Amino acid sequence: MENFSFYSPTCFVFGRDTENEAGAYVKRFGGSKVLIHYGGGSVVRSGLLDRVKESLEKEGISYSLLGGVKPNPRSGLVYEGIELCKKEGIDFVLAVGGGSVIDSSKAIAAGTLYDGDFWDFYQGKHIEKALPVGTVLTIAAAGSEGSGDSVITKEEGMYKRGAGSDAIRPKFSILNPALTETLPAYQTAAGITDIMAHLYERYLTNSAEVEVTDRLIEGLLLTMIHEGPRVIADPHNYEARANIMWAGTVAHNNICGVGRSQDWNSHNIEHELSALYDCAHGAGLAVTMPAVFTYQMNHNVMRFAQVATRVWGCQMDFAHPEITAKAGIEAFRSFLISLGMPKNLEELGGKEEDIPKLVEVLCHGDGRKGTISGFVTLDETDCEKIYRMML
Amino acid sequence: MENFSFYSPTCFVFGRDTENEAGAYVKRFGGSKVLIHYGGGSVVRSGLLDRVKESLEKEGISYSLLGGVKPNPRSGLVYEGIELCKKEGIDFVLAVGGGSVIDSSKAIAAGTLYDGDFWDFYQGKHIEKALPVGTVLTIAAAGSEGSGDSVITKEEGMYKRGAGSDAIRPKFSILNPALTETLPAYQTAAGITDIMAHLYERYLTNSAEVEVTDRLIEGLLLTMIHEGPRVIADPHNYEARANIMWAGTVAHNNICGVGRSQDWNSHNIEHELSALYDCAHGAGLAVTMPAVFTYQMNHNVMRFAQVATRVWGCQMDFAHPEITAKAGIEAFRSFLISLGMPKNLEELGGKEEDIPKLVEVLCHGDGRKGTISGFVTLDETDCEKIYRMML
Repeated sequence: MENFSFYSPTCFVFGRDTENEAGAYVKRFGGSKVLIHYGGGSVVRSGLLDRVKESLEKEGISYSLLGGVKPNPRSGLVYEGIELCKKEGIDFVLAVGGGSVIDSSKAIAAGTLYDGDFWDFYQGKHIEKALPVGTVLTIAAAGSEGSGDSVITKEEGMYKRGAGSDAIRPKFSILNPALTETLPAYQTAAGITDIMAHLYERYLTNSAEVEVTDRLIEGLLLTMIHEGPRVIADPHNYEARANIMWAGTVAHNNICGVGRSQDWNSHNIEHELSALYDCAHGAGLAVTMPAVFTYQMNHNVMRFAQVATRVWGCQMDFAHPEITAKAGIEAFRSFLISLGMPKNLEELGGKEEDIPKLVEVLCHGDGRKGTISGFVTLDETDCEKIYRMML
Repeated sequence: MENFSFYSPTCFVFGRDTENEAGAYVKRFGGSKVLIHYGGGSVVRSGLLDRVKESLEKEGISYSLLGGVKPNPRSGLVYEGIELCKKEGIDFVLAVGGGSVIDSSKAIAAGTLYDGDFWDFYQGKHIEKALPVGTVLTIAAAGSEGSGDSVITKEEGMYKRGAGSDAIRPKFSILNPALTETLPAYQTAAGITDIMAHLYERYLTNSAEVEVTDRLIEGLLLTMIHEGPRVIADPHNYEARANIMWAGTVAHNNICGVGRSQDWNSHNIEHELSALYDCAHGAGLAVTMPAVFTYQMNHNVMRFAQVATRVWGCQMDFAHPEITAKAGIEAFRSFLISLGMPKNLEELGGKEEDIPKLVEVLCHGDGRKGTISGFVTLDETDCEKIYRMML
């Protein structure tokens, strides 16, 4: 196991009606003038935004509002939010929404305390400080509520890039599974896929012998396999929603990723799909992962055979472990399709003729030098083959 | 799933040589005048204490020393530590040792900022504030390095009681698995047993449908089953030590215990054994748990059958689940004995004629009213039967 430090100081407040405590938690963590950042109509229509505003008012906390965050959040609104925060003297950013809203909030929080262009952080500059961020989560998926990560898309060039720092970890995150009951089945399934991707990306390691991390990841994958079909069958199954929501947080606060290398090739390859086609990130991952895993399988067959037997119930073929490994990937693919996820590029809205452009942006965009690197280092030829496997 | 909040703001610093960073972390968390609290000779002989002192000196941090913590730490030394902290104007308590040293440090940290008798906290008064605590861990067992809990034994009456509060959660914990390589095999095995007990106590719940928590616990139990024999066979197996140490922390920072009821009957029943016989807590648990589980099994046979099949590899007997349930308990008992743990009260140094006294202190000591309550509520008759099952 490699040396590591693990620091997850977020206070998680979980359960029914907990959004009414937002004001009290903003106060506890020192906020007095809040930017409430959110997406579109659903948090307004459902009354959630009003309940959050009310809980702030009850504590005598003033606030400004900035809505309009879109999936795959854009830099334009981040610049707008930074300007607003500076002008209004905002001292706390409260995200009310899903991963896109939270990621946008983190970018605003970091950019407000920075004199340069916030995009520097998404090109590798370390975030030293940021306004405190809190979240009221409305979809189980991105894990951003418990992570120090943020992904933003820059309009010029449609680059989708990430930044990470303990400085942007939320001070608190309010998780009420009941808020996710009204999500369309497709979004719920995309969230489940994203959570499973966060687990697989941490499972595909080149460091041996971290049994504890393997076992934690396998336990969370088994949870998703149990709860996924239950929540698709009955969107009002609170217990299933609750298990998925908490698993989504634990899957990405990195307690399942310490002390060893991780992959993230699937995420990087997918990011170009959702940037170009504006598809749901989870849906893109459902198409991307089986292709990437199949392509990467021979790099460490036993790792794929292990997850196949421990998680997918495959029988280990000791004479031909590659058969077991492949069976596990196919079981995962079938599971995602059974939840309603797309099975190929076309169903995502993608086109074969875009592949050269996808490869170009992936491997050369925004400072990259012809490869991406994770479980395996992939060059342009590899990436083109992988995109073609998605057809 | 019941509503909960989960807050684990401890910064975990894991890996080889990390004890040399103690001074830097004390500084980061605001300490300027430190009480170094420790046990006996081994941290002195091994040079660990000197390395920690040196790392404080490098940061220009002054310190006082208080050694002498014994296993099952006593209130006497806590009173002494509180007096010392008040006299010297200490602003940070650094525990260098195992669970006993850390628990004693937490008690001193809370008592220093309290005008009354610190024992009030161990009789149910909530700890509102405490000096910040940091730890350099030397044994994987108690999980105190990541928890808000502390257990102290009061000399008058030999009452062993616990207190818990976020205020006494360590600010940082330094975990270097190599420091545990010199532990005697018996202590290593007792630590493994304690870690597994923390998992089982959280598994034995009366709340249904928290699949995610079941799966995380099962994953950590499987880790212990894999790593336990490896470390007993080769005490210098760093990877096995590392897996056990990190599993021990995750097992008890309560990420495996949120959103549902827990048990803790085994811990309570064992506490009287280690208080009276001064045996290792883990060794006491090795004798206690199989008896308690067998006694409690019929309260929820399927829960025991689940852990038997998922963790111990037992075949599910669908016609007679109680056979599977019992097989799982016996597999656990055999595993503990294979690690070198005692199998009955006699091997712990206990005597049959003490049983009435054990029951009396357990059920009536220190304010209890004839019962203890966990997975099942147990009265004096139940507890006597359980102690007799250990003969």
